[in-house]
Amino acid sequence: MIKVGIVGGTGYTGVELLRLLVQHPDVQLEVITSRSEAGLPVADMYPNLRGHLDLAFSQPDVNTLKQCDLVFFATPNGIAMQQVPELLEAGVKVVDLAADFRLSDPAVWEKWYGMPHACENILAEAVYGLPEINRAKVREARLVANPGCYPTAVQLGFLPLVEQGLIRGDLVADCKSGVSGAGRQTHLGSLLCEASENFKAYGVPGHRHLPEIRQGLARAAGHEIGLTFVPHLTPMIRGIHATLYAQVPDRSVDLQALYEQRYANEVFVDVMPAGSHPETRSVKGSNRCRIAIHRPQDGDTVVILSAIDNLVKGAAGQAVHNMNLMFGLDEQAGLGHVALLP
Amino acid sequence: MIKVGIVGGTGYTGVELLRLLVQHPDVQLEVITSRSEAGLPVADMYPNLRGHLDLAFSQPDVNTLKQCDLVFFATPNGIAMQQVPELLEAGVKVVDLAADFRLSDPAVWEKWYGMPHACENILAEAVYGLPEINRAKVREARLVANPGCYPTAVQLGFLPLVEQGLIRGDLVADCKSGVSGAGRQTHLGSLLCEASENFKAYGVPGHRHLPEIRQGLARAAGHEIGLTFVPHLTPMIRGIHATLYAQVPDRSVDLQALYEQRYANEVFVDVMPAGSHPETRSVKGSNRCRIAIHRPQDGDTVVILSAIDNLVKGAAGQAVHNMNLMFGLDEQAGLGHVALLP
Amino acid sequence: MIKVGIVGGTGYTGVELLRLLVQHPDVQLEVITSRSEAGLPVADMYPNLRGHLDLAFSQPDVNTLKQCDLVFFATPNGIAMQQVPELLEAGVKVVDLAADFRLSDPAVWEKWYGMPHACENILAEAVYGLPEINRAKVREARLVANPGCYPTAVQLGFLPLVEQGLIRGDLVADCKSGVSGAGRQTHLGSLLCEASENFKAYGVPGHRHLPEIRQGLARAAGHEIGLTFVPHLTPMIRGIHATLYAQVPDRSVDLQALYEQRYANEVFVDVMPAGSHPETRSVKGSNRCRIAIHRPQDGDTVVILSAIDNLVKGAAGQAVHNMNLMFGLDEQAGLGHVALLP
Amino acid sequence: MIKVGIVGGTGYTGVELLRLLVQHPDVQLEVITSRSEAGLPVADMYPNLRGHLDLAFSQPDVNTLKQCDLVFFATPNGIAMQQVPELLEAGVKVVDLAADFRLSDPAVWEKWYGMPHACENILAEAVYGLPEINRAKVREARLVANPGCYPTAVQLGFLPLVEQGLIRGDLVADCKSGVSGAGRQTHLGSLLCEASENFKAYGVPGHRHLPEIRQGLARAAGHEIGLTFVPHLTPMIRGIHATLYAQVPDRSVDLQALYEQRYANEVFVDVMPAGSHPETRSVKGSNRCRIAIHRPQDGDTVVILSAIDNLVKGAAGQAVHNMNLMFGLDEQAGLGHVALLP
Repeated sequence: MIKVGIVGGTGYTGVELLRLLVQHPDVQLEVITSRSEAGLPVADMYPNLRGHLDLAFSQPDVNTLKQCDLVFFATPNGIAMQQVPELLEAGVKVVDLAADFRLSDPAVWEKWYGMPHACENILAEAVYGLPEINRAKVREARLVANPGCYPTAVQLGFLPLVEQGLIRGDLVADCKSGVSGAGRQTHLGSLLCEASENFKAYGVPGHRHLPEIRQGLARAAGHEIGLTFVPHLTPMIRGIHATLYAQVPDRSVDLQALYEQRYANEVFVDVMPAGSHPETRSVKGSNRCRIAIHRPQDGDTVVILSAIDNLVKGAAGQAVHNMNLMFGLDEQAGLGHVALLP
Repeated sequence: MIKVGIVGGTGYTGVELLRLLVQHPDVQLEVITSRSEAGLPVADMYPNLRGHLDLAFSQPDVNTLKQCDLVFFATPNGIAMQQVPELLEAGVKVVDLAADFRLSDPAVWEKWYGMPHACENILAEAVYGLPEINRAKVREARLVANPGCYPTAVQLGFLPLVEQGLIRGDLVADCKSGVSGAGRQTHLGSLLCEASENFKAYGVPGHRHLPEIRQGLARAAGHEIGLTFVPHLTPMIRGIHATLYAQVPDRSVDLQALYEQRYANEVFVDVMPAGSHPETRSVKGSNRCRIAIHRPQDGDTVVILSAIDNLVKGAAGQAVHNMNLMFGLDEQAGLGHVALLP
Repeated sequence: MIKVGIVGGTGYTGVELLRLLVQHPDVQLEVITSRSEAGLPVADMYPNLRGHLDLAFSQPDVNTLKQCDLVFFATPNGIAMQQVPELLEAGVKVVDLAADFRLSDPAVWEKWYGMPHACENILAEAVYGLPEINRAKVREARLVANPGCYPTAVQLGFLPLVEQGLIRGDLVADCKSGVSGAGRQTHLGSLLCEASENFKAYGVPGHRHLPEIRQGLARAAGHEIGLTFVPHLTPMIRGIHATLYAQVPDRSVDLQALYEQRYANEVFVDVMPAGSHPETRSVKGSNRCRIAIHRPQDGDTVVILSAIDNLVKGAAGQAVHNMNLMFGLDEQAGLGHVALLP
Repeated sequence: MIKVGIVGGTGYTGVELLRLLVQHPDVQLEVITSRSEAGLPVADMYPNLRGHLDLAFSQPDVNTLKQCDLVFFATPNGIAMQQVPELLEAGVKVVDLAADFRLSDPAVWEKWYGMPHACENILAEAVYGLPEINRAKVREARLVANPGCYPTAVQLGFLPLVEQGLIRGDLVADCKSGVSGAGRQTHLGSLLCEASENFKAYGVPGHRHLPEIRQGLARAAGHEIGLTFVPHLTPMIRGIHATLYAQVPDRSVDLQALYEQRYANEVFVDVMPAGSHPETRSVKGSNRCRIAIHRPQDGDTVVILSAIDNLVKGAAGQAVHNMNLMFGLDEQAGLGHVALLP
């Protein structure tokens, strides 16, 4: 059994990690820390865990964490980078679900996250935990930067085209997220009365996931690629739907076959039959990404549809997937959930 | 492995059964019939099952069903009673998720369901599959009548009081259901534009679950008990919340202790701490029933709150629980799901 | 034109008042105060008002308010009672949408609201603004206590029975409210991710609207009436549905006729045909209360269904109705909105 | 008073027309036809109209319609074109809310709507009823083709750029609609349990609104413009949000000023301040279109956000606006509704 700790388990990413881990056959939950809720039984905050988990939140204590084999950080941005070096030194592996280690250039990080990076020296060691790109590296990693939710959906959608150099001009990623992406903080905009029966874009001038996506696409292409990224808030709890637009003038490529081959060995990426429209509910609670590719009216513009559960493949599930890889477990261990439909 | 067949797997109860069964460690799905969808891969209708299930719907064929160890009927009312006798004779066990075998008095059945009963002779043999009452009988049963969703929530809520003879006067069961309770048929009232941002009662003059609840309460009490039952449609997909009112003038009974003791050995019934208000989302996708008991203002009227997922504890999950009992499996096999929250 | 001021117009009751008042033919909005938002154009906070209202929030200033003919208080409980006496003295009429003047007994107020009452001396003068009971008094009033949302739905539902002395034993009011009833404060429980796809009771041990309802029923009956009141949170924005249970053993009364006669001259109360189930959406954005009355299975228990929009008939609309009465306007002035359906 | 008839008033467009017309100061509703519901009081089908409208549906009868000044067709595609010629001949003006007269090329119509056009001869006379383009023509029109919902939001968003010839390359219109856009038919996909807590694209290979939008843009530009149009289904009742992407390399144009000037005299188009993100709820129940324009990261790609209520500005409200123009009324008559928020 892998001894696991969670730092900051009170948010939605935290409770989703707990849901997956209490059902994981190879994991023993050792400690869940929360400065604000120390002492409170976790199941008192999250009644869905009643009968599944007896742990209480505890005060953050690095010595307890050092006795774990792996620590997940489900903390706000800027926390993990303060604590990770000491844990690594103690031989503890880390998966950070926040953004601290996602951008390899500390200057870009500072620009978008508004604070200097606390441990630039280990930034280079962090592996960007999108297994469909970095499986081999994740297997060897001590420190994995778990990707953002939008970047997961967008990169998986664009990768086959970008890797093959098929794209001309700039890309558009029009993304829609359920409200859980905004977390459990009590923002006015996350109230049911504000977000329900409503649809809106946000962050059009610039969103923190933009540099993360561009970094990923540049690595896959070998050069920078222009991207316009517009996130939207959708009146539902879970799910991200990315509608992706690319100019692919070359008609000789069988795009459906390209995608199917690219993801043939990826159990968590499902390339749907030609003509499909993946629904976010088809992955609700599951770690899958479902993708469809279209060339409407046989034009130059190709449309890729990519759907994930932002809390699973876009956060906690992908983190567990990375853990499985880091410890040589079956990749699907603890991740066999069928989406809850309806 | 138990060889399982499903008759009529296209509705919401059917897909929920499939979700549970494809993850069940002791089950092998042999056949799913659907007259209208024969030939269609199940995962084409329910994309959440892509990658989990390769079966296609097949034409109903009793010979195929006879090769199963157990057949679930997830059909409209009145179908199972036509086919069950032949299956029983062939040594196949049956769990009927419809209403055909729930009422022991065929005259009552005919009154509420508008058709004569097709096999009164085996009605007496059918065990009402509420394990918290009939565990021992279910273990021996060839034919289990899986309870209705409202009756499950209401009976579990009232049982401890009724069994102890603590009630005076008539009961009130004010019940609220998510829209999935109305099934996958395209009723006007089930449209998002009709049922969303809306709340209403229905069936106040009389609902088919009334005689089922009254039958259960009468058995537990040893005599008839008056009941007013009002169901309501709630703008959500899953969940039933029963708010139950009973006159319990005797102040000497510790109701909290009574409930905790009654359900101490029931893994799927969670009596919450005094003062709690169970939420339907705390059981979404799970087979639990969560219950709280209140005596507001120290008055005569006791209020019991009972929450289930109508598709799990109120249908498919309870059916799997019954199957586990009928085959001597671990009661919790395949039913360990943590509710999806948020 | 009546010169109107609003104190505390930033909440949902405030914006609903604004929606009604900017379309009211006899009203001129003079001032909207908000300590926290002074200087902000109202339409910047509530973009639905862009193009309809040019006013900005201003600092609370009693001298400005004194120049109004009428001031609405849409403030948290305990604010209006500090300021009303001075306004009354200056000849300004007041409608308080909070609870400060709803309970005539200051001891009861203090018990339920946790603070002493600041102006007991004018409490007796305040008219409880349910026009269907107090129309004549409201016409003469200087100070109207606008009823709570639940109390409006419940009292209108029970009144005909109570006034006729038809009830035996205690009453049950099982009430369901949309989330806007919790206001625009950023409570955790009001987040879409907490309140959507969920149903729960709350405040079962005791809710502040209980004494208000009991006071109203006692006045109508001439004696105290026992009541169990259970409010629930429903995953929708607007609407209250009260499901009311009363023992009415006397079968000789034509209840449908009784209700129709009681409300024959009430334009804002719609007694629906026998057998109806009023839907909250049928009053969304409208000032109507729709009521239906049932005697299920011809039993002793009568079920009344009562539906309102909590922000209109349960708050801002009823306040405008009271204003219309206080100034001798057409009762329906500014209140002719057809509910938005779907 | 203008005597108005409605053909086919049972759908969501029909009930929205009724909501607007019963509150319109210059309109008298003469007749509402419905083959299937003849004899049924309209308020029995739409309880929000109880107390506002006493009319019953009547059998379609051209002689009754001929006594109207104006007839709205809220029928499925292909019905109006059968009946309009006779009405025009009788001097009755017509606004068709279906698609029959939207496309000026009958060959294009036949390709996308799958049937030959029944009255090509009057197609040329039909005025495309987007008042912001065709106000003068609408004023003189006998027959107005009311625009589709997506085409309204998309064209208003792109028009200022297209009219000024600022666009290079192809356009992208990523559009999101509430479920009421699918009408009141009982499609499986419109069930709450299918459409709620879900997001998906549909019609990516081709949607009927594509040729309508392209026709409008071509007219405004003076030449064909390439467009990729992807509609999506959003889990809410009302609202369309169009996110529009255009390559505008010329940095010398002040886009904010361009939009403000273009719509300076358009009461129903609100160009929001720079940096805004219009919300669909800010127009719920209102006839406004709210627009914001962005140039993210100062790149070539300009993003326009355009929000309407699909049933009002996207259907019934625009139809009433057209009626107001055709009869020389105040453009805003009966259209002053403030959006219902929250």
